[in-house]
Amino acid sequence: MSNSLFGPLSGTARVDTLLDDAAWIAALLEVELALSAVAAEQGAVDPDDADGVERAVAAVAGVDPAALAAESVEGGNPVIPLVKRLKAAAARIQPGAERAVHPGATSQDVLDTALMLLTRRAGHRIAEDLAACADAAAALAAAHRDTPCAARTLGQQALPSTFGLVAANWCAGLDRAGGRLSMLLAELPVQFGGAAGTLAASHPHGPAVADALATRLGLAGQGVPWHTERTRIGELAGALGVAAGACGKPATDVVALSGTELGEVSEAAPGDSSSMPHKRNPAAAVTARGAARRAPGLVATLLANADHEFQRAAGAWHAEWGTLTELLRVTAGAAARLRVCLSGLQVHPEAMARNLALAAGTQGTGSGHAAELVDRVLAGRAG
Amino acid sequence: MSNSLFGPLSGTARVDTLLDDAAWIAALLEVELALSAVAAEQGAVDPDDADGVERAVAAVAGVDPAALAAESVEGGNPVIPLVKRLKAAAARIQPGAERAVHPGATSQDVLDTALMLLTRRAGHRIAEDLAACADAAAALAAAHRDTPCAARTLGQQALPSTFGLVAANWCAGLDRAGGRLSMLLAELPVQFGGAAGTLAASHPHGPAVADALATRLGLAGQGVPWHTERTRIGELAGALGVAAGACGKPATDVVALSGTELGEVSEAAPGDSSSMPHKRNPAAAVTARGAARRAPGLVATLLANADHEFQRAAGAWHAEWGTLTELLRVTAGAAARLRVCLSGLQVHPEAMARNLALAAGTQGTGSGHAAELVDRVLAGRAG
Amino acid sequence: MSNSLFGPLSGTARVDTLLDDAAWIAALLEVELALSAVAAEQGAVDPDDADGVERAVAAVAGVDPAALAAESVEGGNPVIPLVKRLKAAAARIQPGAERAVHPGATSQDVLDTALMLLTRRAGHRIAEDLAACADAAAALAAAHRDTPCAARTLGQQALPSTFGLVAANWCAGLDRAGGRLSMLLAELPVQFGGAAGTLAASHPHGPAVADALATRLGLAGQGVPWHTERTRIGELAGALGVAAGACGKPATDVVALSGTELGEVSEAAPGDSSSMPHKRNPAAAVTARGAARRAPGLVATLLANADHEFQRAAGAWHAEWGTLTELLRVTAGAAARLRVCLSGLQVHPEAMARNLALAAGTQGTGSGHAAELVDRVLAGRAG
Amino acid sequence: MSNSLFGPLSGTARVDTLLDDAAWIAALLEVELALSAVAAEQGAVDPDDADGVERAVAAVAGVDPAALAAESVEGGNPVIPLVKRLKAAAARIQPGAERAVHPGATSQDVLDTALMLLTRRAGHRIAEDLAACADAAAALAAAHRDTPCAARTLGQQALPSTFGLVAANWCAGLDRAGGRLSMLLAELPVQFGGAAGTLAASHPHGPAVADALATRLGLAGQGVPWHTERTRIGELAGALGVAAGACGKPATDVVALSGTELGEVSEAAPGDSSSMPHKRNPAAAVTARGAARRAPGLVATLLANADHEFQRAAGAWHAEWGTLTELLRVTAGAAARLRVCLSGLQVHPEAMARNLALAAGTQGTGSGHAAELVDRVLAGRAG
Repeated sequence: MSNSLFGPLSGTARVDTLLDDAAWIAALLEVELALSAVAAEQGAVDPDDADGVERAVAAVAGVDPAALAAESVEGGNPVIPLVKRLKAAAARIQPGAERAVHPGATSQDVLDTALMLLTRRAGHRIAEDLAACADAAAALAAAHRDTPCAARTLGQQALPSTFGLVAANWCAGLDRAGGRLSMLLAELPVQFGGAAGTLAASHPHGPAVADALATRLGLAGQGVPWHTERTRIGELAGALGVAAGACGKPATDVVALSGTELGEVSEAAPGDSSSMPHKRNPAAAVTARGAARRAPGLVATLLANADHEFQRAAGAWHAEWGTLTELLRVTAGAAARLRVCLSGLQVHPEAMARNLALAAGTQGTGSGHAAELVDRVLAGRAG
Repeated sequence: MSNSLFGPLSGTARVDTLLDDAAWIAALLEVELALSAVAAEQGAVDPDDADGVERAVAAVAGVDPAALAAESVEGGNPVIPLVKRLKAAAARIQPGAERAVHPGATSQDVLDTALMLLTRRAGHRIAEDLAACADAAAALAAAHRDTPCAARTLGQQALPSTFGLVAANWCAGLDRAGGRLSMLLAELPVQFGGAAGTLAASHPHGPAVADALATRLGLAGQGVPWHTERTRIGELAGALGVAAGACGKPATDVVALSGTELGEVSEAAPGDSSSMPHKRNPAAAVTARGAARRAPGLVATLLANADHEFQRAAGAWHAEWGTLTELLRVTAGAAARLRVCLSGLQVHPEAMARNLALAAGTQGTGSGHAAELVDRVLAGRAG
Repeated sequence: MSNSLFGPLSGTARVDTLLDDAAWIAALLEVELALSAVAAEQGAVDPDDADGVERAVAAVAGVDPAALAAESVEGGNPVIPLVKRLKAAAARIQPGAERAVHPGATSQDVLDTALMLLTRRAGHRIAEDLAACADAAAALAAAHRDTPCAARTLGQQALPSTFGLVAANWCAGLDRAGGRLSMLLAELPVQFGGAAGTLAASHPHGPAVADALATRLGLAGQGVPWHTERTRIGELAGALGVAAGACGKPATDVVALSGTELGEVSEAAPGDSSSMPHKRNPAAAVTARGAARRAPGLVATLLANADHEFQRAAGAWHAEWGTLTELLRVTAGAAARLRVCLSGLQVHPEAMARNLALAAGTQGTGSGHAAELVDRVLAGRAG
Repeated sequence: MSNSLFGPLSGTARVDTLLDDAAWIAALLEVELALSAVAAEQGAVDPDDADGVERAVAAVAGVDPAALAAESVEGGNPVIPLVKRLKAAAARIQPGAERAVHPGATSQDVLDTALMLLTRRAGHRIAEDLAACADAAAALAAAHRDTPCAARTLGQQALPSTFGLVAANWCAGLDRAGGRLSMLLAELPVQFGGAAGTLAASHPHGPAVADALATRLGLAGQGVPWHTERTRIGELAGALGVAAGACGKPATDVVALSGTELGEVSEAAPGDSSSMPHKRNPAAAVTARGAARRAPGLVATLLANADHEFQRAAGAWHAEWGTLTELLRVTAGAAARLRVCLSGLQVHPEAMARNLALAAGTQGTGSGHAAELVDRVLAGRAG
């Protein structure tokens, strides 16, 4: 049990119901149901038995997560007791239907496939928020295409630029991160290999069942089972880490630009303080940054757990479940909070001008190609 | 919301109720209550008002976490709405008592102090499990002080050793990790600085209130407020990371030694497999390893967030809450699962002898000082 | 100064001369030279002056790295003193030519572009080794398409599989990782934005100069300057981390499979031991694993440093240089050492059969679709 | 080979000659020499033979690192070929003396002990710089005990504080980090276990040799060999990570406080810019921050490599060498650069007053107990 108390403020609440116990159990059962159905289609099990599984799934859907959790300890994963319950329910509801439960599968097939389903759902919400952030940044870039502000390097005013170019750069990073994530979400694969990864228990239907299962669940084909070939998990981790970073950059800038002395931007609904009514904290940017800063360590954990030995890893696999879902949460949090931050961001050109007058404005070089660069980013999005 | 479905199998359930929403809210209120009381003792608020706070705390204790979570978004932390509720309750229950709510404090004072309370509780449970693991390893070392087995280097049999020495090394690491963690748990500090870290709002009572608050809560004194001086968080993170690693080492060995071909140890209640009844999976070691492998990335996150700028960090602080509690969870999981693994570990001297005969046994050098080294570890514990 | 003593054994020597001081200085000067030339082509500087720069570059090429290093301290990067030296040399060799040195550029333009050149060169060598590893794995898969061996899950024998399928899975991961890396290497961008990222100092030639510079150096266009938009660095980091992991997986398997009791594979030239002549250590796999295990933390560092504030980061940028080059080194090391490991890997079917007889062989289920899955991987490569 | 080009600017040059190839070879030979000598003292080898080893060590000291590196590939570590060379030299110089080379030791004994020697030397330099940083911070705290400045929370001015308290907090963190590091440096252990960790080859002299070796090298006793019990490496990693963080915090503050709009501090010798003569970059703080930000990922790598399986790890051990030395380098860099930053830091009370007038100064609450807190930190150091 982690904490919903911090979910809304950290933005992780955006995906919590997509990743919670109920979502896990529903996804595991969705995979089992699909597997029975496609196995029947492919002739691997009796269609009548498969019909019984559908009713058994419905009967098991309300299982108490705590009970299932307790039963999971012995074998080390929740699929083992879930399948036991499913078989028992099938046998009870329609004797013989238990033969169509979990056909040819191993626990990892079901768990990994369910994890891909959860990832797709949470990932789409992240991608949606990244797109909304990029749209908001693009709108700021367009609106302030020619608004002068100081470019700052190493914390010092350097030369004049425009706020439009600042926002266009945010937009470019968010678009790139969102694009890559969406591409990977479209490639999330099914997992189906059986106990040894050879599809032996579903022979001779194995490859056909695997392909049909992917189609039915809307996942990509697996090529070959990837029980211990985890490059796809690593790629996903990398993309989420990049997305969190793409949110952290504008959040960092907003915090700095809204400092008392700079005062160049402010959030639409800045946070208050119980003891200091004069404060206007950029709470959305602050919490976006807080969420984004949690991602890199989780990415490292997933990459460090690529060393799945043999045909099922003794630990590296188990380390992935909580880490990938936590990475989805914090990345979602960063995107959701940044969306709030940027959507209503107030820009103060007069403060920008005042600050420019302190130093950078005296350089008189103008903002060069800033407007053109803004146009280039906006045109690239439209194209 | 994270997942209780995986809590028992990953061992994180060991501390979940110490770190969940209810535990957080109780700890936050415990700090507020203590603060009002010691402020009254020190003459900073009216004792009658403080009495009213005690009743207000009781009234607020049942607050719906979801409601509090929603109210936390604006300001970016849960203390702001909790204090509002507490003041309202105090004013309602005993008009004027609201003056004794949150005296001289800032949100971070309450949140950091509550986090130290949670850390102490979860940390003690981890330390208890580390000690139990070390005891189990010591018992194995004593029982198998003279049981020959192969020492393996780079995966190859090298020379004879004893299983006692293997277990004694586990014990030494677990003891060291546990000792350091316990030392840090005894030094967990109170946090009390007020909005600017100057104790201005509690002047002239500030330092006395801070010290009394520490005493009342059983925490160490702070020296000076540490709002953005986070070396203590980093030290704690390091100690938890080391503890997880000290659990991961024996878990890794147990997995390897219980492989089919080696067969030198087996867990008391190995996991079964739905499809392969002949399997005897070392499920406790596997899940201990799975939990331990999640710690290093979380440690890195906490260390990377040491850069708390100014007098309250805009993101680095917020990144700590979920990360430290998650680190406590996975470390607890590693220790709890290893405790199960080691407590009933079955040792198979005949398999050790059989394996030794393959290679290392032919070297004929004997096990040198292995028995003495075991005695040294055991004596060091007794001393 | 790091250590060449460990370079050959850890495989990092494979790219060391591509990333050392001489390579850095050459790349920085290559960028300066190209910049002067394209600025002349685009009419931003006088072609005669640019000719003088070419001679100045030749004069500066032999600069003592230690002297340049010492001069770099004040400004915090080596481009500042290099440009000073280049201007002085140009003025000396051909008075007036100093006007064509570093036209419109800022230090970060030159350093980032040089880093992309270094990355491309080291990256191509990594990609070459990944391809060689994948080829070796494919050859093993083809040769042992039907060689029975035990599939092991959680360290225990599960069911029969084939060694061909094991190797085909290695191949699939290596191919995926190599493909992604190659794609990113082809997209490495030029950096050219001038001091404020507005191309002000090269106005009105800025965008044309940027494009021509990319073409001349064989880099991709930048779209807009990415001084503080670092998603591309993050993507590169992710791809390198995945590549290291794709090497770590087979290395881990080789270590385990070549253990004394399993004895299913051995390296062509296993390492010896000064004190134990009977040992045959899988030294290439061991050191591949050692290198691969260093990557994830470095990836996390690069992702955590995505928060480049303002228009040039005060620290996050500086943290990238050593980290990205170190990540290139360890990834190269993992790939280079795995190439040695796999290229001559000895497979022992009789040991596989002997082990299978212990447990998995008794299950009698056969190896299912293993051969078909091998063919699928091999066909996918041919296509 | 890594890069000396960036060594001075990143501060890593501070320890480079303590960790380079020459330092490694010297330390390895120092251990071998000490081992022969104490083995003779303890009666394990002939004293005359040991005398010959002393001359052999001198003969081998000039070995070409590149040649040794090449010879290290086969066995996977540099001790194996170094011992071969040493034995050959001993046999040549004084026939029979080769019997006193490497008595009872395994490669890991020599390499780990040498690594502890390198760590102690580099660590002491880090501790020295941390102390100098803390002294500089303390001097700033004393000098500005009563200098008003704004306390800023979440980037916003909150209430008045003093610059003395800001600096006192830097001091507290640096002192804590330095104290812990120094404690661990005093506990760095010798490693001596022989091939299997049983001290078999030095029986019956093993424990006495181990103790004498520690004494002679100025290291702590080992208790028992720690070939695969790496909690001490993890503790060291944690302490270095905390130290880097303790440097990163003031560096971050200095960067922010020296920004154009705040202008409250400036470095004694700020960096210039080739194109912008008005800039005064806080180059020492920037590069201190750049170095500090590289530490957490390296700490994670060391903690993730705590899982040394069996009696010598196949990869986890090899991953430590480069990582620990790199962590020493970046931590040294952070401390060395911060020392430069703080030693001559210019403080601008008039800018502080001007900024305070914008917001926090209007609160009129005074700086509370700030001066007392400064005194408390300074008194704690004197005590």
